[in-house]
Amino acid sequence: MTGPRRVAVLTGGGDAPGLNAVVRAVAKSAINKGWEVFGVEDGFEGFFTRNGIRTLSKDDVRGILQTGGSILRCSNRGDPFRFPKQTDSGWVREDRSGEVIEKCQTLGLDGLVVIGGDGSLGIAYRLFEKGLPVVGIPKTIDNDVPGTDVTFGFNTACQTAMEAIDRLHTTAASHQRVMVIEVMGRDAGWIALKAGVSGGGDVILIPEIPFEPEEVVKKIAAREARGARFSLVVVAEGATPRSGEKTVAVTAEDSPTGFERLGGIGERVARLLETRLKVECRVTVLGHVQRGGSPTTRDRMLGTRFGVGAVDLIEQGRFGHMVALHNESITSVALKDVVGKSKLVKPDGQEVRAAEAIGVGFGR
Amino acid sequence: MTGPRRVAVLTGGGDAPGLNAVVRAVAKSAINKGWEVFGVEDGFEGFFTRNGIRTLSKDDVRGILQTGGSILRCSNRGDPFRFPKQTDSGWVREDRSGEVIEKCQTLGLDGLVVIGGDGSLGIAYRLFEKGLPVVGIPKTIDNDVPGTDVTFGFNTACQTAMEAIDRLHTTAASHQRVMVIEVMGRDAGWIALKAGVSGGGDVILIPEIPFEPEEVVKKIAAREARGARFSLVVVAEGATPRSGEKTVAVTAEDSPTGFERLGGIGERVARLLETRLKVECRVTVLGHVQRGGSPTTRDRMLGTRFGVGAVDLIEQGRFGHMVALHNESITSVALKDVVGKSKLVKPDGQEVRAAEAIGVGFGR
Amino acid sequence: MTGPRRVAVLTGGGDAPGLNAVVRAVAKSAINKGWEVFGVEDGFEGFFTRNGIRTLSKDDVRGILQTGGSILRCSNRGDPFRFPKQTDSGWVREDRSGEVIEKCQTLGLDGLVVIGGDGSLGIAYRLFEKGLPVVGIPKTIDNDVPGTDVTFGFNTACQTAMEAIDRLHTTAASHQRVMVIEVMGRDAGWIALKAGVSGGGDVILIPEIPFEPEEVVKKIAAREARGARFSLVVVAEGATPRSGEKTVAVTAEDSPTGFERLGGIGERVARLLETRLKVECRVTVLGHVQRGGSPTTRDRMLGTRFGVGAVDLIEQGRFGHMVALHNESITSVALKDVVGKSKLVKPDGQEVRAAEAIGVGFGR
Amino acid sequence: MTGPRRVAVLTGGGDAPGLNAVVRAVAKSAINKGWEVFGVEDGFEGFFTRNGIRTLSKDDVRGILQTGGSILRCSNRGDPFRFPKQTDSGWVREDRSGEVIEKCQTLGLDGLVVIGGDGSLGIAYRLFEKGLPVVGIPKTIDNDVPGTDVTFGFNTACQTAMEAIDRLHTTAASHQRVMVIEVMGRDAGWIALKAGVSGGGDVILIPEIPFEPEEVVKKIAAREARGARFSLVVVAEGATPRSGEKTVAVTAEDSPTGFERLGGIGERVARLLETRLKVECRVTVLGHVQRGGSPTTRDRMLGTRFGVGAVDLIEQGRFGHMVALHNESITSVALKDVVGKSKLVKPDGQEVRAAEAIGVGFGR
Repeated sequence: MTGPRRVAVLTGGGDAPGLNAVVRAVAKSAINKGWEVFGVEDGFEGFFTRNGIRTLSKDDVRGILQTGGSILRCSNRGDPFRFPKQTDSGWVREDRSGEVIEKCQTLGLDGLVVIGGDGSLGIAYRLFEKGLPVVGIPKTIDNDVPGTDVTFGFNTACQTAMEAIDRLHTTAASHQRVMVIEVMGRDAGWIALKAGVSGGGDVILIPEIPFEPEEVVKKIAAREARGARFSLVVVAEGATPRSGEKTVAVTAEDSPTGFERLGGIGERVARLLETRLKVECRVTVLGHVQRGGSPTTRDRMLGTRFGVGAVDLIEQGRFGHMVALHNESITSVALKDVVGKSKLVKPDGQEVRAAEAIGVGFGR
Repeated sequence: MTGPRRVAVLTGGGDAPGLNAVVRAVAKSAINKGWEVFGVEDGFEGFFTRNGIRTLSKDDVRGILQTGGSILRCSNRGDPFRFPKQTDSGWVREDRSGEVIEKCQTLGLDGLVVIGGDGSLGIAYRLFEKGLPVVGIPKTIDNDVPGTDVTFGFNTACQTAMEAIDRLHTTAASHQRVMVIEVMGRDAGWIALKAGVSGGGDVILIPEIPFEPEEVVKKIAAREARGARFSLVVVAEGATPRSGEKTVAVTAEDSPTGFERLGGIGERVARLLETRLKVECRVTVLGHVQRGGSPTTRDRMLGTRFGVGAVDLIEQGRFGHMVALHNESITSVALKDVVGKSKLVKPDGQEVRAAEAIGVGFGR
Repeated sequence: MTGPRRVAVLTGGGDAPGLNAVVRAVAKSAINKGWEVFGVEDGFEGFFTRNGIRTLSKDDVRGILQTGGSILRCSNRGDPFRFPKQTDSGWVREDRSGEVIEKCQTLGLDGLVVIGGDGSLGIAYRLFEKGLPVVGIPKTIDNDVPGTDVTFGFNTACQTAMEAIDRLHTTAASHQRVMVIEVMGRDAGWIALKAGVSGGGDVILIPEIPFEPEEVVKKIAAREARGARFSLVVVAEGATPRSGEKTVAVTAEDSPTGFERLGGIGERVARLLETRLKVECRVTVLGHVQRGGSPTTRDRMLGTRFGVGAVDLIEQGRFGHMVALHNESITSVALKDVVGKSKLVKPDGQEVRAAEAIGVGFGR
Repeated sequence: MTGPRRVAVLTGGGDAPGLNAVVRAVAKSAINKGWEVFGVEDGFEGFFTRNGIRTLSKDDVRGILQTGGSILRCSNRGDPFRFPKQTDSGWVREDRSGEVIEKCQTLGLDGLVVIGGDGSLGIAYRLFEKGLPVVGIPKTIDNDVPGTDVTFGFNTACQTAMEAIDRLHTTAASHQRVMVIEVMGRDAGWIALKAGVSGGGDVILIPEIPFEPEEVVKKIAAREARGARFSLVVVAEGATPRSGEKTVAVTAEDSPTGFERLGGIGERVARLLETRLKVECRVTVLGHVQRGGSPTTRDRMLGTRFGVGAVDLIEQGRFGHMVALHNESITSVALKDVVGKSKLVKPDGQEVRAAEAIGVGFGR
């Protein structure tokens, strides 16, 4: 074989800064090899929609390196193995993965690059098992894909969150206040941990370390007692109290039913501290701000190397693998070793211990 | 008169980026005239606390130009006319303004520079009426002080909010989504208006234009119908539906009690749109992020000119006035013409009409 | 008349952040009135090239608000009154303004919006005199267009320059050093002045205030004598020594021919200080970095209002005028009152005096 | 031994963003262990100046995490093995390393943390060989210290350079132009490589790959021929033409002596392209802007972990080692394996090949 000649690329799942850097690198490096490149729009959905697949030329990827989002758009609907179908008795799921494979054959694809997190990479792996020549590129702002030191998008998300924390810092310091900021991370606390430490947070609450509300109160109270004029609490959206929601509610004597009424964990922690410490609390919920914006140099570089690496994998015929960063080098790992697993913050890992060494509290 | 020789400066009310630029300019320009400068800490509270007033040297204001917050710290407690006092029967208010005047006399002050918003400037005016040589500097991120084209802090707050909107834009564009962002502005919608227009918001809801929930729904629906893949709604925290909260709640048939349960107006608008349009909504609540951070060039320049201008006012004996920007020149206006008034967004002013001309909806 | 129905827009001269905001506002507001909009590419050159004029739809201006550059591209070649033509005896200039007018008539244009600085607005005015229904929008990062309080692009350029100065500040402060930064401004020193003051520059050299090299040396020496560990000098590219270039060279005894050999004034000032004060100097030449990047909130807002305002001028038939900002309101001024004039920094104006009041030296 | 009780920290060599994060982490983590911490000012010079060594408390390191520069200030003068001394016959060097060791003994130091690049780490190693309990922390924006995947400061420098390139990109794109940007890197091209690739540079010239001027000309010409409207050239300050300077000069027929007259390699490359391709070139020389500014999340996190790690090394008695990042984990390497060596860009390493895969030219 003289090497594949036609490849397609898609961006699955949630948005992450750097997607366009990857798409651009896949397209440019493949085109520079003389290959033809297709873009599948809206994640796997593009296989099922009219005009969902289009040729990508160098012109199509011009000027996108510095942009957030994805020119192919993302989607986490459209899992071909469980594609939604409306029937008389409501929505059901059906397996349309065969159509994906047919479409790839019709297009004469020699390789499909799936850029995605756990969900999309899982689909990629199943398609590979059914015979499709798939390679993966790990993507998630949450950094929870195993097998790679880091995923692209994560660094930008941390930078964005840290900059928000920096801003809170200066204003907290000129009043006497507790600032609470809720950042992304339902299952993995990487953003809260890295943005929290680099932003100088005093307390960081993450899903991997269920927190004891009393410990959080004690930590902030101790800071106040030492003369600190403010405290900054960084909360991952998935952080939970050790003994479950009820305990948190109970500690808030003044508004016993308060915790049920309020949306996020950030709000709840703020109310806890206000109630217990009679201190003014302010809450910021960053939300999707963390998914957008121009990617950092690290995410663009990583995205570019991932994109080039994925085309290399196709050239080498290493299907069923995803590119990975290991020790600052691009390598590859088998999707089967990655799919369905999560890389979580280790409660006693180096980062957490370093944070604790400089006095950060994790509510434990 | 050979001109005053001793001045003090204080920063009242909420935090605003640029406070340190003003304090630095007051100190440097006064010291360069051979004057002595004092800093009063924690707003007016510094008059009542031990060591609450300290000399400011050039060294004290070195390196602060680019920082957020205030080296003198802000406070909106400590109104000397209504100073809180704990008695057997609870907290009461007492007039301690006389002490402020005595302290200023003891210090031999020839002028007191009060940097603040409506509240602090009101106190400044009353102190002036009681004979204190006061000059004011208008400060608020909300931009609602009349008599000046703009207040410092406002530009930075708008820039911060706009950058957050920019980030939401890129991520909204790669999914099919409505993004709602709640920004500051309880009474004045300036931040929502300027950050919203400059960030490319599709709907902007401000306190000055009570919105009709149906109109918001229709606007977003119309965008969807035209093929727009996403919409961005910028909501001032003080925005309210035209017909009161109840109407909003009622429109949400699927979760009739939903609106009471949720904190901010941003959340409520998001739930409204989700309920009515079956579209995914995401909410960001920026909060105090808008009050912090390094000031923009405009706020530093304006702050510097205000600081220099206030010292000039003292030299000229124009007490009871505040500095103002008018037509890019520093002028002054009498505090009596300003205090107690608010400069609100005009529902049919140039800015709103320009926004409507390019298609922005205000829910009316 | 029922109002014009067809308008075209072009961006002349050098690049300025906010151009796309203006183009977008012109297009959106005109289209929302039911008008047809054309874009002329590469400034006036587009009138003379094939496909140089194209329809602008809302889709064409989608997503450009936050981008630098111009989707219509800029050009300062192509003055139709002096259009370059290659002949046997070399390049000559010919008047092709008639063709512009014909082309506008052929297209049925009811108005042409010219976005530009002094050069492009001058052309606009001459075309207006020849009968073309032209309106202007003042644009230059140099802020030297008279008749308007400010031009768009200027604020972003100042912000960019100030952020560079901020970075120099932190690193200068940890070494003992003089940092020199050369910013844009051949004839007008606005950027150097505003970025310099807001960045905390110690010396600011601008074209409007020819500097005495000895005074610059003395100022830096005085700072050193007072114990300052570093100094920061902001130099506009058009700054010149009072007594002409030769004097500067002569002061550099150790490298008498040195000044001729070096490119910019920034380099020359650095060599002067190194030679005279035996202090380490470092030079940054920002260059076109100041012309690019995402526009600030102020420039986007101003650009949007200018764009809407220009369409309003056309609707009102106020041709031969340009939009302007006066006292935070959009107004208009006759091009004839503006063209050929420059708004320079007043050597004894408020801004310069405020800078001097806080200790900034201008080398005089 | 119950573990060391007194440690000192110094920041040697050039400035790098993140120094304060390291100093803070050293101080906080040591103090939290109950140790006493001293700061040595101005690099090794502090050992020889009055009051050059001071106690560091938690208050001293408060609020410095987000700042550039070093609160201890840097210096690359003051090598104790070659300390400058003024004699009758001029300046000579003398070995005063013994005094450093004595001073450390007098202070009762159990460990000295040297934060520095190759120069300072070399001194640290020689002091260790003489018996001083030294640990090192690798620091350089150039990223050329071996034994660690990355040094802190590098990521911020790349981000700053990339943001400048981004700005140039937008403005280059709206004119027909070549933009040249000269970035730091005398011996190592890491900044040019990473900022260049992540900024979308078309040509990147680094010291490790001597460039052929003709190849650079050809690459830009080829882009023009393909219809590219602009090109962006990123040049490390230490980049050199393959066949030496003379060749470059010779290629510039129109100004044969031109290349000698101009300062940096950036200018020279620009003149080469202007002369050969008759295209407008613009040059930016970023200079020390790259050394300053608030550190990125990555540099703050890395700096924090390095600081904590250095204190751990002291606790473990692993002197003569420096902390290092390997595979996202903190480890340590012996200084003897690092000192005197440089980690350069490999001309055929992964990063360069990835860049070439997407079409970047290196002038070879």
